[in-house]
Amino acid sequence: MSQSLFEPVPSGTIVTPQGFQAAGLHCGLKKTERNDLGVIVCSVPAAAAAVYTTNLFQAAPLQVTRQSLVNGTLRAVVVNSGNANACTGQQGEQDAYTMRAQTASQLGLAEDEVAVASTGVIGELLKMDCVTAGIAQLPVAIGNQPEHAEEFCQAILTTDLVKKEICVAVQVNGQQVHIAGAAKGSGMIHPNMATMLAFMTTDAVISGEHLQQLLRETTDQTFNMITVDGDTSTNDMLVAMASGLAEHEALTPGHPDWKAFAAGFRHVCEHLAKSIARDGEGATKLVEVVVNGAISDLSARAIAKTVIGSSLVKSAMFGADANWGRIIAAVGRAGEPVNVDTVNIRLGDIVVLTGSRPVPFDEEAALKYLQGDTVQIVVDLHYGEGQALAWGCDLTYDYVRINAAYRT
Amino acid sequence: MSQSLFEPVPSGTIVTPQGFQAAGLHCGLKKTERNDLGVIVCSVPAAAAAVYTTNLFQAAPLQVTRQSLVNGTLRAVVVNSGNANACTGQQGEQDAYTMRAQTASQLGLAEDEVAVASTGVIGELLKMDCVTAGIAQLPVAIGNQPEHAEEFCQAILTTDLVKKEICVAVQVNGQQVHIAGAAKGSGMIHPNMATMLAFMTTDAVISGEHLQQLLRETTDQTFNMITVDGDTSTNDMLVAMASGLAEHEALTPGHPDWKAFAAGFRHVCEHLAKSIARDGEGATKLVEVVVNGAISDLSARAIAKTVIGSSLVKSAMFGADANWGRIIAAVGRAGEPVNVDTVNIRLGDIVVLTGSRPVPFDEEAALKYLQGDTVQIVVDLHYGEGQALAWGCDLTYDYVRINAAYRT
Repeated sequence: MSQSLFEPVPSGTIVTPQGFQAAGLHCGLKKTERNDLGVIVCSVPAAAAAVYTTNLFQAAPLQVTRQSLVNGTLRAVVVNSGNANACTGQQGEQDAYTMRAQTASQLGLAEDEVAVASTGVIGELLKMDCVTAGIAQLPVAIGNQPEHAEEFCQAILTTDLVKKEICVAVQVNGQQVHIAGAAKGSGMIHPNMATMLAFMTTDAVISGEHLQQLLRETTDQTFNMITVDGDTSTNDMLVAMASGLAEHEALTPGHPDWKAFAAGFRHVCEHLAKSIARDGEGATKLVEVVVNGAISDLSARAIAKTVIGSSLVKSAMFGADANWGRIIAAVGRAGEPVNVDTVNIRLGDIVVLTGSRPVPFDEEAALKYLQGDTVQIVVDLHYGEGQALAWGCDLTYDYVRINAAYRT
Repeated sequence: MSQSLFEPVPSGTIVTPQGFQAAGLHCGLKKTERNDLGVIVCSVPAAAAAVYTTNLFQAAPLQVTRQSLVNGTLRAVVVNSGNANACTGQQGEQDAYTMRAQTASQLGLAEDEVAVASTGVIGELLKMDCVTAGIAQLPVAIGNQPEHAEEFCQAILTTDLVKKEICVAVQVNGQQVHIAGAAKGSGMIHPNMATMLAFMTTDAVISGEHLQQLLRETTDQTFNMITVDGDTSTNDMLVAMASGLAEHEALTPGHPDWKAFAAGFRHVCEHLAKSIARDGEGATKLVEVVVNGAISDLSARAIAKTVIGSSLVKSAMFGADANWGRIIAAVGRAGEPVNVDTVNIRLGDIVVLTGSRPVPFDEEAALKYLQGDTVQIVVDLHYGEGQALAWGCDLTYDYVRINAAYRT
């Protein structure tokens, strides 16, 4: 999408959009002193939308958040890291409801105005004494300054190496609207640690219904197009809140600035998704797979995800090996229609396959390109108009080290 | 299946069944002096059946073999390693047909009595001078002694560490019938090396049609239930030949000894499949996943394959980590119906999950069990009657080392 439709806000955070405050602190769920409890609060009822993991074993907080979202609005979302509150049975559900009730009373909100998210170890009960004490400290910790956003971003990380945050500005009815987001790392990174959490804030005026529709469409092309190890966690959740304080004419698909808002919204999602892929467990580089000419976009997505998910392709990327044989083999097993005689493959600008036949290429140049920190694999099928982008990372010794380590 | 239906033949080989001879030699396709060309010959037209890779990019030899199998009989199968003859275009097809024609004339057979198989580097043309010279030497190299089978088994290996061969005997109409098989390693083990080749011989009397039916059913439960890295090669092929020289009443599903023959046939396939999984790239152990209580056998297979294919589960097995959270997460993303409250998980005899809830277990005992060279993961869904077995291996540093190595 055209960059000109929106502007990056370099110093922007999740509290840049009007009406939002945040906090983060250490309540004792993580063994180290790192933050493990955070909250985002909106000064008014925010139109809200969310998407959840497709894993059948969904953690307790997801059910609580679903319930809070029934009426399409939220005032706050409370998050803990260090414990996923997954596979914890009725006690786990009770604990998630208690988190919601305590946060609501501390912030003077109704229970169903609060969403709950958790990430961490599966199968252990939450230390509710820590959680309760932490929630009691939230009101004094809350603020709308960059440091408050920073504390929140730290509070949702598990074994992520870097925080993931972004803010952009778009013009709606000539008025500046902000869209911001924060996320935590992908892959069930640490033994039993859960996957992706993401939170988006905006001061745009938009109904929960339209926000949900936009979120669904956008996540299918961004967060749902990344993979680190193909394992879908029990805790994935993305919550978006729109305060509406920008006070422009409500955004709908028919609004003249809908395209600009959608572009900014997508950019925020894509940036967070790519940041998660690049920070995947043990990763040394971001790998982007582009599939063009598939029979449909859906088909292109399936093929792109098969290539980005191939352990052999990922290992080759780690080894900076221009191993197109693995790429075309992955394309061929994706279960999608392909003309086996018309496939072109490029690594960046280096053409390695044309009409499904090998092309002599400069191995040195390929090695140099693949040793970079961002690698693009482009597959042109010449079969239809379907396109897709997928992002992932390389498969490294560190991935095995991290995941073979005995739980501690 | 009951072991008593058949007997292992410890010293048996693929030439133990009446009518079969074999040969293997070095023709120059492999850089080292290892064998890279082999043939199995039958003294009479053998009822034949085959299954092929589902990868859309199928290597040239598969098309040639399909053509030879149209009439359901074969006299010989010629195999080369060191070059997959895949993604090689019309020249590759021509080369595969030439291999067939030369083998036929050297052995005094009709062209359509010969099947062709290849495994090795993708995208390079066969050195036909080497192949032609090698085929010319085959007649003198052929024999029905164990050493001839050994030469053949060596000729089909790529980076396999050990040869895979087995023979069993079953009683049909009170007469001894042999079923034997040989295979090469799984996983696109070496950069651009192709996956599984398997060859089966028997002196049973059975039609090509019934052999094909039995082969299809059996491979779905054996070879199609193993994974090393989830990457399906362009060259997978299994060819079975029945000489009929045991001269018993022809085997059909209605034959009183069909069950015994099918059991022996399955044992040969299962043994080869498990040998391939255990010898997967970088593997330190065989992992067996048992799924019980799924809504159907198909559903059980999908779940078993998702668990055995999970990089996180495979890494945990390498680390001897009783990480049930990853196992249940894999079950939950398999896309199959599951009751999220009734799942039990065992590691060998060590129960770690009951009714989808964690059970305290002896971590020391679990560590000791998971450090063994064969590990069994048992998932009981309590949802239906569906069952499945799947085999794989652990994900190790060596897997990454082997596959990140720059092609040489």
